[in-house]
Amino acid sequence: MDIALLAHGQFPGRAKTAVGVLRYGDQNVRAVIDRDTAGDRVNDHVAEVQDAPIVESMDDVPAVDALVIGIAPIGGGFVESWRPDVRTAIERGCDVIAGLHTFLADDPEFSTLAEQHDCELRDLRDPPEDLSVADGTAGAVDADVVLTVGTDCSSGKMTASYELRDAARARGIDAAVVPTGQTGVLIEGWGIVVDRVIADFAAGAVERLVETAAEDHDLLIVEGQGALAHPAYSGVTTSILHGARPDRLVLCHVAGRTAVNGYEDTAIPPVAEYASLYESVAAPVADAPVVAGTLNTQSLQPEAADRAVSTYADELGVPATDPVRFGVDDDLLAVVT
Amino acid sequence: MDIALLAHGQFPGRAKTAVGVLRYGDQNVRAVIDRDTAGDRVNDHVAEVQDAPIVESMDDVPAVDALVIGIAPIGGGFVESWRPDVRTAIERGCDVIAGLHTFLADDPEFSTLAEQHDCELRDLRDPPEDLSVADGTAGAVDADVVLTVGTDCSSGKMTASYELRDAARARGIDAAVVPTGQTGVLIEGWGIVVDRVIADFAAGAVERLVETAAEDHDLLIVEGQGALAHPAYSGVTTSILHGARPDRLVLCHVAGRTAVNGYEDTAIPPVAEYASLYESVAAPVADAPVVAGTLNTQSLQPEAADRAVSTYADELGVPATDPVRFGVDDDLLAVVT
Repeated sequence: MDIALLAHGQFPGRAKTAVGVLRYGDQNVRAVIDRDTAGDRVNDHVAEVQDAPIVESMDDVPAVDALVIGIAPIGGGFVESWRPDVRTAIERGCDVIAGLHTFLADDPEFSTLAEQHDCELRDLRDPPEDLSVADGTAGAVDADVVLTVGTDCSSGKMTASYELRDAARARGIDAAVVPTGQTGVLIEGWGIVVDRVIADFAAGAVERLVETAAEDHDLLIVEGQGALAHPAYSGVTTSILHGARPDRLVLCHVAGRTAVNGYEDTAIPPVAEYASLYESVAAPVADAPVVAGTLNTQSLQPEAADRAVSTYADELGVPATDPVRFGVDDDLLAVVT
Repeated sequence: MDIALLAHGQFPGRAKTAVGVLRYGDQNVRAVIDRDTAGDRVNDHVAEVQDAPIVESMDDVPAVDALVIGIAPIGGGFVESWRPDVRTAIERGCDVIAGLHTFLADDPEFSTLAEQHDCELRDLRDPPEDLSVADGTAGAVDADVVLTVGTDCSSGKMTASYELRDAARARGIDAAVVPTGQTGVLIEGWGIVVDRVIADFAAGAVERLVETAAEDHDLLIVEGQGALAHPAYSGVTTSILHGARPDRLVLCHVAGRTAVNGYEDTAIPPVAEYASLYESVAAPVADAPVVAGTLNTQSLQPEAADRAVSTYADELGVPATDPVRFGVDDDLLAVVT
């Protein structure tokens, strides 16, 4: 599928979905739309992902099948300055795919236009209708379940999930990512965006995902969401922790980050303490030790990054890596799988 | 308001909403509908609440303004065997009030009938449309915030909230319950049923409730939901813990209960450990020690109940009571307020 990725003003640093698709998706990205970096190319900003031109608006995008909204503001609402690009896409006959809390299909202009131009509006966050409370049965699946958990939002959980999956596959393990967020659902073509589910059913949604994926794979890497000590999203995190009943946890952290992103008066606990907190909360439901760590060292020079990973591993007392920068070695993979 | 309470097959032991309204609501309960105990009276089963006849069906209920669904199965769905009673109520011109996950208003038969008979179908779980993620600001309110937390569902959190409120009011403190569940919302006439909110917005919903109530009262007793180590509902619990940013916690437990209700393979951690778990998870967001405990001793003889409360207090290292059986004394109230 040929797509364009909308990422106005936030590419690449705060365009998690756009970068995730560029790195792990099998879609062919024909353009990124960002008025701030228009004229550059993707690889000018992010190495080792598929390259594409960055353009100013949908008017400058070559023929594509779909426009994908590749960014999400806090709260997940639609941003009105995106409207002309979405309108143009529909008028050109493209589907529009978004993972927002407010649904494109509920927008009167877009739904009318989409009907006129025979386009699909795909809201990835729209949950299945038949969810219910967790039965507490995910621990019985015939697969190993690893959950990536974080010290904050945007701490590398999805990236760690895919890098671990790829490393496991490279060694012959039948591994799959269990997608719980909009980017994962977009990349995998299935899944449930757990943060959009009725709170009472969030653990049940994750349980269903794990039980479904376990039918086809030996190692499941469940993409975590939020963080256990996050002022707004901790409920989603806890639901995933208890719904998935993981065998092992991988703790994801961003080098140098000391406060919760967007909640600067809330300090992130020391990583070893944070790992223990995850284990303690998991314990009544699942015996799930933190067996490895991943560290996003993007902001550091190579030597400092190397030192930061060593320090992080020492603090946690388990193997650690920056999977994008340094890959996943056999020692780390052994403890995870 | 004159009401009837539907509680088929579950009165009183598993009819939490019905008993809550009988004990704390200002509605005039004209009948409880329960085919299993029909012919008895409420006070044959529950002491010290308003009395009413128990009848077999809505046909046997005297004139009332509303039928209230006073029970909720796990999952919160509508039970088809209730249909004749709801139908009769609407045909008699009564409003119907329910706190189910499936909305009465979405039922084609009920909505058509309600329109014909000019009745209101009130779904207490229907959340406000304009919720969003928490800002992390509830800690700044000009009120003391106490949160009741539990070792399980149905462990006495709502009861503790009301008993603590009444004890505080009796001593001249301007205290209010912040309702987060269907029974509390029914009793108070406002609030949000947090477990029905989009998972990402659950903490934000609680934050809004706390900030609203703090405008009018000095002491807020936030009704907790679920339990931190509950296989299905822990996400809701965590959202309330972090959204409310409480100053103090009260831990509610049921004497003798050792496994999670409905999840018998999941043991309830020892109460002291459970209290520490709540404090540890709260800590990054709110410094909220467990300052008191409540114990439901309904299943015990008086002497055993007394001993059980003492043991519970010793294990927690804080004052404890069964507030229904033994009331709330000055020592306990002092640490809570």
